[in-house]
Amino acid sequence: LSCPHALNEPLKKASAILRSFAWDAYMAEFVGTFFLVLTIGLNVVQGNDLAPLSIGAILMVMIFAMGSVSGGHFNPAVTLAVWLSRRQKITLRDAGIYWVVQLLAGLVAGLTYSGVLGASFALEPIDDKRGTIMSACLVEILYTCALCLVILNVATTNQDTPNHYFGLAIGSTVGSAAIAIGGVSGCSLNPAVSFGVTITHVLTMESEGRHWDYIGLYLAAPLVGAALAAAIFYAVRPAEYGGKKDK
Amino acid sequence: LSCPHALNEPLKKASAILRSFAWDAYMAEFVGTFFLVLTIGLNVVQGNDLAPLSIGAILMVMIFAMGSVSGGHFNPAVTLAVWLSRRQKITLRDAGIYWVVQLLAGLVAGLTYSGVLGASFALEPIDDKRGTIMSACLVEILYTCALCLVILNVATTNQDTPNHYFGLAIGSTVGSAAIAIGGVSGCSLNPAVSFGVTITHVLTMESEGRHWDYIGLYLAAPLVGAALAAAIFYAVRPAEYGGKKDK
Amino acid sequence: LSCPHALNEPLKKASAILRSFAWDAYMAEFVGTFFLVLTIGLNVVQGNDLAPLSIGAILMVMIFAMGSVSGGHFNPAVTLAVWLSRRQKITLRDAGIYWVVQLLAGLVAGLTYSGVLGASFALEPIDDKRGTIMSACLVEILYTCALCLVILNVATTNQDTPNHYFGLAIGSTVGSAAIAIGGVSGCSLNPAVSFGVTITHVLTMESEGRHWDYIGLYLAAPLVGAALAAAIFYAVRPAEYGGKKDK
Amino acid sequence: LSCPHALNEPLKKASAILRSFAWDAYMAEFVGTFFLVLTIGLNVVQGNDLAPLSIGAILMVMIFAMGSVSGGHFNPAVTLAVWLSRRQKITLRDAGIYWVVQLLAGLVAGLTYSGVLGASFALEPIDDKRGTIMSACLVEILYTCALCLVILNVATTNQDTPNHYFGLAIGSTVGSAAIAIGGVSGCSLNPAVSFGVTITHVLTMESEGRHWDYIGLYLAAPLVGAALAAAIFYAVRPAEYGGKKDK
Repeated sequence: LSCPHALNEPLKKASAILRSFAWDAYMAEFVGTFFLVLTIGLNVVQGNDLAPLSIGAILMVMIFAMGSVSGGHFNPAVTLAVWLSRRQKITLRDAGIYWVVQLLAGLVAGLTYSGVLGASFALEPIDDKRGTIMSACLVEILYTCALCLVILNVATTNQDTPNHYFGLAIGSTVGSAAIAIGGVSGCSLNPAVSFGVTITHVLTMESEGRHWDYIGLYLAAPLVGAALAAAIFYAVRPAEYGGKKDK
Repeated sequence: LSCPHALNEPLKKASAILRSFAWDAYMAEFVGTFFLVLTIGLNVVQGNDLAPLSIGAILMVMIFAMGSVSGGHFNPAVTLAVWLSRRQKITLRDAGIYWVVQLLAGLVAGLTYSGVLGASFALEPIDDKRGTIMSACLVEILYTCALCLVILNVATTNQDTPNHYFGLAIGSTVGSAAIAIGGVSGCSLNPAVSFGVTITHVLTMESEGRHWDYIGLYLAAPLVGAALAAAIFYAVRPAEYGGKKDK
Repeated sequence: LSCPHALNEPLKKASAILRSFAWDAYMAEFVGTFFLVLTIGLNVVQGNDLAPLSIGAILMVMIFAMGSVSGGHFNPAVTLAVWLSRRQKITLRDAGIYWVVQLLAGLVAGLTYSGVLGASFALEPIDDKRGTIMSACLVEILYTCALCLVILNVATTNQDTPNHYFGLAIGSTVGSAAIAIGGVSGCSLNPAVSFGVTITHVLTMESEGRHWDYIGLYLAAPLVGAALAAAIFYAVRPAEYGGKKDK
Repeated sequence: LSCPHALNEPLKKASAILRSFAWDAYMAEFVGTFFLVLTIGLNVVQGNDLAPLSIGAILMVMIFAMGSVSGGHFNPAVTLAVWLSRRQKITLRDAGIYWVVQLLAGLVAGLTYSGVLGASFALEPIDDKRGTIMSACLVEILYTCALCLVILNVATTNQDTPNHYFGLAIGSTVGSAAIAIGGVSGCSLNPAVSFGVTITHVLTMESEGRHWDYIGLYLAAPLVGAALAAAIFYAVRPAEYGGKKDK
């Protein structure tokens, strides 16, 4: 295609900008987050006994498959933790794009499982007894911290990467948490899950408004956990920041 | 054995052709597919709670055992995805032979578990409510896509192979899917499973014809998922096609 | 210690013979087989739902721990398969000693779990309907074949070793089989298990003789499976026998 | 900060001593032990069916994450076994600090799950029938021995490290044991678990004193198992002690 001379320069510039985006990585984040949230929804709506294993496994395999393309975050809290841990692992621009793609994939997945099963579900503290909201908030923070800490340690250090267990470690953290705190908070640990699940529930169910009650908790708590993980990572891995080498 | 001169040349040629076949690989595909379908049948007919773990595990171990002999497909959809992804991973002739061997192994396994247990089962959407056939079809496509995508990424790329997790990732994808969609479609993801299970059921049960109803769905949906996986793979792994190197 | 000259030579010879034995390997086989059979017994007697996972996991970890000391057989059928596959992996003398040590460890483990729980159990086809003995025999042969085939492929080939998944693959084969055929034959796959479990049951229970009925089946079927595995291994891995290199 | 000359030397010395401590390792031991005991408590108090998988998985991922920082002990019995196995893997001073940090982390975790769920639990032999205390003691010794033996073999040998399965092997040992002996002793295998769980129960429940009854057993039995493991390790790995090389 030949262009008039006056348009040539802007087009070249636009093309250069477009090529500077990591389209393959965004695609990988979309696909991985989609299958993660789809698998969560199919299992939770059906009430499968082995749901935590199914969820942990799909995360593991998507990370093994896509890790070297996009880092295999599939979770805005993880993207935040990686960005907060500095060391040039991700630019602010890419982190922002990752967030948008992850939230979008969560929503598309939500509409998919809702369409397949004709039902959806809400994220909420399992029991409305006094203190339960606090409990749900605390376990979401703590286990998102554990998740991000595992990711920072097994997938981003000079000392331990490359290795052959990064996907197993990360997927198993979510599987373990889903068993341990599924009965406390429902176990999101991931704003893309919280967003996709909640919006889908509001859009598809005889919504009465209260489904929005806890979305703030399930969006914010994972991000607090991510920040906590970045701080602990800094303390336990001085070697990654030019400090003395671990033994 | 000495032959009359006139027969010598044709015999040499036939021998060369025979030696050009990868008999060890066909044997490996037969054995792996046989144990996969046998394990599926034994678990499903008995209704074991942990069936998805048993099935995912046998696939994993057969891939670890036979992967370097035949690639460890054990599934015509996988063979299709590998062939569609080009890059000279398998010839059209070998892909065709793999298909025949896989379907045959599925049937032999079906007759084996049916003989052992004196019972068989049909693959069908779990509930005949309106829309369920569509749902079954969709999840078969989506999870076969996930399976083939994982295989293409962990077992066939220059960037990530060789690695020590290929079998774990592939087997766990099927285990995860069996939990997530076992209650929707039954979770075949594999035309050799669909073929072996259905033919066995028709041959051994007081068949009333309707067992054939869904065989088209369970043969075709996995192949559609395989093609979708090949397309996504092309998008997320430009480096495998001579494009720019992933970061 | 100084000896009369006449005794010196025989003592040196005896000492050389003693040093020629792989005492560390025999000890490793004892410990691994002991924990395998102990874990089987504790789980089966208590009727744990997750028994197959516990059993597969203990086998996996013992193989990871002891594999480089003794090969991590813990099973006379495995020792037979390795010996039948030739390639100087084990001498006939060591294979014989392994058998004795494995059977002994199985018995000590049997007495241990029987002492801990005050109960034991028998290995027998789960249902006495016509044909069930045949079924039990067939699945014991087939899954011991799968087990030995996995071991030969992941732990003894030039092409695939060393690797980091050998224990995972082998342990998961037994875990998968325990789920698939636990309800058919009880799933021994291992003469040391059959021996330890049966002798313990006879010694500790109000034995009525019939507990011996099936010991032949559970001792012999695994050995048949082992021989079948060695034959298949020969066919799928010509490269290990100086044949043409697998692709 | 400038100091009077007279204080300069002591301050320098104090600073040198402080820097000689492995603060990052102590932090890693705290975090790993905290998440291990937290996950145990959340699962046991809720009575989750899949509790052993959740517990084994969290141990695995914390070891994968922190192993290269602190060794990933998270258990005074493991620290004892590593110290007893000599070979300069840990100094007596660091072993002592590890013990203190692990016990403290166990207690903080205990107070956390107790606060989240408003309940706690006691470690005790599952059944008070005659002999059960002996049974609980024996299985705690045996499976702590298995755990420490696996750790010594997969994480501390010259022959087998570095490898990519150390976390999987160690976590799976605890998961396997939790299934096998959860119904006998409750499965502690770890004085930090015993300490955190028991002190929390005494502090938070309508305590009647008897909760202290078994703390001696659950603190001491794991240490006996650790010593046994160090002795077996010495026997099966002569190569690690300058003996003849294993084959």
